[in-house]
Amino acid sequence: MSKVFIHATVTLDGFMADLDGGVDWMNGFPSAPEDEEVVERVIQQLGAVVGGANKTQTIEEGEVPYGAMVKVPVYLMTHSAHEPIEMDGVTYTFVVDDIAQAVEAAEQAAGDKWVSLLGGSISRQCLELGLVDEIHLDVVPILLGEGISLFTGLRKRIKLERLETSAFASETHLRYRVLA
Amino acid sequence: MSKVFIHATVTLDGFMADLDGGVDWMNGFPSAPEDEEVVERVIQQLGAVVGGANKTQTIEEGEVPYGAMVKVPVYLMTHSAHEPIEMDGVTYTFVVDDIAQAVEAAEQAAGDKWVSLLGGSISRQCLELGLVDEIHLDVVPILLGEGISLFTGLRKRIKLERLETSAFASETHLRYRVLA
Repeated sequence: MSKVFIHATVTLDGFMADLDGGVDWMNGFPSAPEDEEVVERVIQQLGAVVGGANKTQTIEEGEVPYGAMVKVPVYLMTHSAHEPIEMDGVTYTFVVDDIAQAVEAAEQAAGDKWVSLLGGSISRQCLELGLVDEIHLDVVPILLGEGISLFTGLRKRIKLERLETSAFASETHLRYRVLA
Repeated sequence: MSKVFIHATVTLDGFMADLDGGVDWMNGFPSAPEDEEVVERVIQQLGAVVGGANKTQTIEEGEVPYGAMVKVPVYLMTHSAHEPIEMDGVTYTFVVDDIAQAVEAAEQAAGDKWVSLLGGSISRQCLELGLVDEIHLDVVPILLGEGISLFTGLRKRIKLERLETSAFASETHLRYRVLA
């Protein structure tokens, strides 16, 4: 059965990006071959992706999940209907507002493989709806002070189980099971 | 020379306590002997503590840093002058508003040992003033959604270097050097 997991790179203070969406601060940290293996292993497991995209043109401009490295169906939340977009071997399907429906469609597309959730709002909504099986974080060693937060705004207390912790160079990889 | 470090137990979303200061959520997670060793090693290194205490009576009521397990001088930030308090072999010295002065006094008292900073406001102020050498976090596997945050409100971008990551049972222990 498919597993649904939150997949995010965050600062130590929990930000995924600057206030303006920038991620320049991610660069310049040494990484080890083992870090690549962690990423590669997750990517191999991926069967579908659910992300946010209020602007369909960002897709056409190439701002796509995982930089289009992962050739799996992508479901993007929108506020207005839009035809699917096919690009570089990936199908981007737009789902209007109903996040549970998007996750269900992604799970069906993924089969035995995993569904990754990208973005703070989508991750928090899915946590609140009880749709998340695991959380995978790659923690970058920096404090931003302000930015777009992964968890801020979550309206539920959620117990986790630590499944895996690893660190080789700069990043720390954390993997948790969502309990309740 | 003394090292100054932020020492905190936080949730995965970065909270040290509930909005009302409660830490009940810390209980009920399995721990391993190795977790105790991490704590013990830090406590052995401690030479002084800087914390917040607007209410001196909380000291007299026994609400003291590290539950008075650590017999080292404690410097507490206040807004109004107060005579030092001696209790259970620990001297609590009150410092009015000047955090840099409190850290300096703690460093002198600590000698070759380390100074731990407790509390979000004190930690953030010291980070902004460039007074922090390291950050030691014990991450508890839970998301609170809201509470008293360690880093929220930090008004500076700060690069870190990952020094150590360990995990045995539920908690993850993270140790970083503050770069700039």
